[in-house]
Amino acid sequence: MKAMVYYGEGDIRFEEREKPQLLAPTDVIIRMTKTTICGTDLGIWKGKNPEIEQAAKAKTGNFNGRILGHEGIGIVDEVGGAVTNFKKGDKVIISCVSRCGICENCQKQLYAHCRNGGGWILGYMIDGTQAEFVRTPFADNSLYLLPEGLSEDVAVLLSDALPTAHEIGVQYGNVQPGDSIAIVGAGPVGMGCVLTAQLYSPSSIIVIDMDDNRLAMARELGATHTINSARDDAVSRVLEITEGRGVDCAMEAVGVEATWDICQHVVKEGGHIANVGVHGKPVKFALEKLWIKNLTITTGLVNANTTGMLLKTCCSGKLPIDKLATHSFGFSELPKAYNVFKHAADEKAMKVMIDFQ
Amino acid sequence: MKAMVYYGEGDIRFEEREKPQLLAPTDVIIRMTKTTICGTDLGIWKGKNPEIEQAAKAKTGNFNGRILGHEGIGIVDEVGGAVTNFKKGDKVIISCVSRCGICENCQKQLYAHCRNGGGWILGYMIDGTQAEFVRTPFADNSLYLLPEGLSEDVAVLLSDALPTAHEIGVQYGNVQPGDSIAIVGAGPVGMGCVLTAQLYSPSSIIVIDMDDNRLAMARELGATHTINSARDDAVSRVLEITEGRGVDCAMEAVGVEATWDICQHVVKEGGHIANVGVHGKPVKFALEKLWIKNLTITTGLVNANTTGMLLKTCCSGKLPIDKLATHSFGFSELPKAYNVFKHAADEKAMKVMIDFQ
Amino acid sequence: MKAMVYYGEGDIRFEEREKPQLLAPTDVIIRMTKTTICGTDLGIWKGKNPEIEQAAKAKTGNFNGRILGHEGIGIVDEVGGAVTNFKKGDKVIISCVSRCGICENCQKQLYAHCRNGGGWILGYMIDGTQAEFVRTPFADNSLYLLPEGLSEDVAVLLSDALPTAHEIGVQYGNVQPGDSIAIVGAGPVGMGCVLTAQLYSPSSIIVIDMDDNRLAMARELGATHTINSARDDAVSRVLEITEGRGVDCAMEAVGVEATWDICQHVVKEGGHIANVGVHGKPVKFALEKLWIKNLTITTGLVNANTTGMLLKTCCSGKLPIDKLATHSFGFSELPKAYNVFKHAADEKAMKVMIDFQ
Amino acid sequence: MKAMVYYGEGDIRFEEREKPQLLAPTDVIIRMTKTTICGTDLGIWKGKNPEIEQAAKAKTGNFNGRILGHEGIGIVDEVGGAVTNFKKGDKVIISCVSRCGICENCQKQLYAHCRNGGGWILGYMIDGTQAEFVRTPFADNSLYLLPEGLSEDVAVLLSDALPTAHEIGVQYGNVQPGDSIAIVGAGPVGMGCVLTAQLYSPSSIIVIDMDDNRLAMARELGATHTINSARDDAVSRVLEITEGRGVDCAMEAVGVEATWDICQHVVKEGGHIANVGVHGKPVKFALEKLWIKNLTITTGLVNANTTGMLLKTCCSGKLPIDKLATHSFGFSELPKAYNVFKHAADEKAMKVMIDFQ
Repeated sequence: MKAMVYYGEGDIRFEEREKPQLLAPTDVIIRMTKTTICGTDLGIWKGKNPEIEQAAKAKTGNFNGRILGHEGIGIVDEVGGAVTNFKKGDKVIISCVSRCGICENCQKQLYAHCRNGGGWILGYMIDGTQAEFVRTPFADNSLYLLPEGLSEDVAVLLSDALPTAHEIGVQYGNVQPGDSIAIVGAGPVGMGCVLTAQLYSPSSIIVIDMDDNRLAMARELGATHTINSARDDAVSRVLEITEGRGVDCAMEAVGVEATWDICQHVVKEGGHIANVGVHGKPVKFALEKLWIKNLTITTGLVNANTTGMLLKTCCSGKLPIDKLATHSFGFSELPKAYNVFKHAADEKAMKVMIDFQ
Repeated sequence: MKAMVYYGEGDIRFEEREKPQLLAPTDVIIRMTKTTICGTDLGIWKGKNPEIEQAAKAKTGNFNGRILGHEGIGIVDEVGGAVTNFKKGDKVIISCVSRCGICENCQKQLYAHCRNGGGWILGYMIDGTQAEFVRTPFADNSLYLLPEGLSEDVAVLLSDALPTAHEIGVQYGNVQPGDSIAIVGAGPVGMGCVLTAQLYSPSSIIVIDMDDNRLAMARELGATHTINSARDDAVSRVLEITEGRGVDCAMEAVGVEATWDICQHVVKEGGHIANVGVHGKPVKFALEKLWIKNLTITTGLVNANTTGMLLKTCCSGKLPIDKLATHSFGFSELPKAYNVFKHAADEKAMKVMIDFQ
Repeated sequence: MKAMVYYGEGDIRFEEREKPQLLAPTDVIIRMTKTTICGTDLGIWKGKNPEIEQAAKAKTGNFNGRILGHEGIGIVDEVGGAVTNFKKGDKVIISCVSRCGICENCQKQLYAHCRNGGGWILGYMIDGTQAEFVRTPFADNSLYLLPEGLSEDVAVLLSDALPTAHEIGVQYGNVQPGDSIAIVGAGPVGMGCVLTAQLYSPSSIIVIDMDDNRLAMARELGATHTINSARDDAVSRVLEITEGRGVDCAMEAVGVEATWDICQHVVKEGGHIANVGVHGKPVKFALEKLWIKNLTITTGLVNANTTGMLLKTCCSGKLPIDKLATHSFGFSELPKAYNVFKHAADEKAMKVMIDFQ
Repeated sequence: MKAMVYYGEGDIRFEEREKPQLLAPTDVIIRMTKTTICGTDLGIWKGKNPEIEQAAKAKTGNFNGRILGHEGIGIVDEVGGAVTNFKKGDKVIISCVSRCGICENCQKQLYAHCRNGGGWILGYMIDGTQAEFVRTPFADNSLYLLPEGLSEDVAVLLSDALPTAHEIGVQYGNVQPGDSIAIVGAGPVGMGCVLTAQLYSPSSIIVIDMDDNRLAMARELGATHTINSARDDAVSRVLEITEGRGVDCAMEAVGVEATWDICQHVVKEGGHIANVGVHGKPVKFALEKLWIKNLTITTGLVNANTTGMLLKTCCSGKLPIDKLATHSFGFSELPKAYNVFKHAADEKAMKVMIDFQ
């Protein structure tokens, strides 16, 4: 089968690989029908995750590449003996987080940190979804039946982008009716925050980015105010909008110091900063000002424990997230899709969908 | 009357001042019977809070010194017309936080950030308790009747040290039965954390400090493990003690980068860092490692909304915090007390009590 | 001045009374501009609250009638000396709950049970708002500035109906995105539940009542399903709609055994029953079936701690509650308004507004 | 093998049965070493659970008896192919609740209501632990390794009594430091409430029962006050002890109307009633008095999601629950043990331990 494989910093190859096989009775094999590329995949390509090859070498002595991708939908092709919820032919959404359901962390819904070899492993510690077939461990806990009539583009966004936005941005940020919130970064996850925040009826949603196209889309999706931080001073604009008070919740959805810095300067006393972005470097934390402010700051990888609820809500049409699917490619064009997504701003790309048919 | 007055960086004077007068119908005047010195008072002396003179000058054009102190007990001497809970002659504990009870923040128990001129103001934005008399605003909300039979040393610690430890350390840190916790810094507030954490039955309490005397006292108060970070690597010792897992909650009770740094490296996935220390500088926040760990990090000034509960618990003898009162001085010796407290480690001092009789 | 006065079971009189006077420095006197009649007022008229005359007699030996009413808006006419947030001429919304802000209960936001003589007292333990003037105690904590441009009918509903629905129905019922909920009773408070539940994005809102007009209005306000329990078996219909599962939350908004009974039989395991109705008799609680179901059942009087948030949300147009104001009368027609409201179903009345101009 | 088998109301037989076999790859077979009898087992014997035979007949057309028992410890004898956490020879504690870990309810830690055939099934819907061998489904999720050095009597109480007390009594009852609580019923689960409540440091623990022996034991385990409700009026005594205020939390640990009734009359405004008892009949719920009191009332079957924490806490010696093991019998004496436990008060029995060696 064909697959997109990571070999090391700057080295990904679209090549032939063997079809995966069931390894445990809780596995299934899925024939992919649609996938997408995540900002994290770009990060791996850029060399941000050398732990991939390090872990492989530590375990087996060598590293033969890793198939990328942790998002997508497909059709169940083979089923392990202990799987009870799924059967061959089922159309399913693959969660980016695999979970044993048994360990200490899974028992507290901290699925992101499953201690039995689950968590975020697809396209990272094991082969992923940018291939014709994928093996998914702990299938009973990690797949969702794709309902009839749900847009496939929406379904793909339920693998990671939407639950990450909802859980790590909106829930950890404790968005409540009447709140003012700021979302820093209008990429796919930031847009997911714009949409899922509205499930809790904040009174103002301020979106900050440097790309006017994205800000226009944010307004379309529900932002009440937008700030282009390339042109305006984001911190003083947020303070202006909030009559000097700051926001109840700031969500960091980029992963660099500049956006963290906006967050820590716009949040009001008693407020929340929800860090959603994947950071490559430490940031400066202004504790000399913030020690007194009774803040709550959260970080996290998605647990996907709200995927079921979001799926139901998407089915009712309340989360028009398919607007994020700006580009579509056939699977054979995957290298091209990577190049478009790498230059997302220029290409006015938000999410690039990869269709296997 | 005599009072300890701050005039600017490095300049405090024990001198004659006029007795305070009622300014609002919700005020009372209290004749002090016991007070203490807080680490924050030393910080003001060292010049860490130039906002004191700045605010005074911004308001009135000049600055005539500020009486220090935000802790203590005394006897009600005069009562404003709108005060209903207290009368002349009542023995009271003064909360370090004054609260209107009315504003948006008070209505969510965020009393530390009272928007009607309350919050931490005593010995900071208005004259404080290191004087023979003090005016306390919003008296109905900000004083507690001193119960018969309660140790006066304990009572003084209910002004600030104990509620700060409990609310900003233990409650914000979400200490739960069975948890492992690390407390970095064994000063009075760290010791308060050791004591009040036990109200929630953690299974291990690891205390980290550089002073063996303090670590010995921590063990006496309930620490299950202690680490002298001057001799041992605190991070690796905590990981050893917790079988490589890290702690559920780390409390920073010093206010410098080194202790913050221990905290951020010993907390396990899904855990809490409760910052209690007063910081003078930013710290480096290792988001490149922590973004993925589903942490909750909190900061804060005490709201004193658990003072009533702690008072009741102290009365039942469950919080033997009077052990922290290591030194005692008469009020006329206040300058000497400041010098002892300034060299707390050498003097083996924890809390210095100032007696007005 | 004119006022509607309760003298005992079945005996209310629209008569001349003396204008109220300031009794405490925290009082204000308000000249009423709009009020309404609450189902509770009808209950008092019917004799459900003999504690009114009992308390008066216990205190002063006799009972000279009690002016009814705990809702409305008006203009501040006189201001007590300790009031800081309001001045003569301010247009204000009167909260049905008066709160000292100081006592043990107010300090935990349990304002409904203020222990300094607050709580629900207006038109109950002290004279109320169905009069040309009213004295409101603890004015700083118990009034809200009426924003320019807000519909006066909406403003009147912020006194009681809307916060009661939101706090005692929706918040206590823990409504979450994706939930299925049932609201039993489509009177003004039930309708408030329909509206404010939507702040949390439940996926289905089932409203049950015996009046088709009210059910039609419920659908207009956002109900996804309605059941006329006079015609259909409400319990089996709810189970049908929820595929046999029952609802996550059932809200009782009537106050009789039949409606309680529906609630306890339609809630699923792990669910919530929020009792909002005012009951005059005990109900049978099916613990032999429910002991095992991990339910949470709540009761309560409004604390009005979300009135500020709801006010903001109403201003943004998100809560079109003015539709509930079906009838309008001049103040001189108050007796007639009582008769219309007493026969609400026949008169197709929801809320009757009383205008003082 | 020998087993205690229920055949219908009043009919239990200690007889030969076939050894159980693995039915699913997630099962294990355990050789029992210690078990006990629960009040629920007595209830089944008395005919309170005809659903046992009804469910069997509905499924297979006939009912051949059900082996009783849902508590105990043993040694793993056979292991299903999908079990990863346990191996032959492991000493384990059996949780009374079996959980798939996968379904909608398990994903919210509502394990008591596992929708894949788990929940409380042992000795109820499938054969139980009062036999030489038992089959336990979903073994990875439903067993705990028995630590070296933990008292076996304590271990047996971790199957049901202690987690039920902690989760359904203390956690659902929201016990907090400084609270006053009342526990109505001093049987094994009530005693578990006395012990586990202390993990949260309430200031007073009032235990109510009709048996002086049990009240004496309650005082030994930490009760601060006891009331013999056969001699004294429990409600007025609780009000006396709490200075007329009532308790923050009342726990019903019997399962009859009289004890429920005490609970609903002793809880203060804003308080909690946690129903732990298994009820056979409806109770009268005084909503005409309680609608206004902002109460939270909970019911429930244990989820056993705190068993791991309690196990750790027992190992540290903080929960001296072994005192509840008042009687010990060999397995061959099981019928005699039933008779002793049936007359627990006369026999001064709390928990009867059954030893298989």
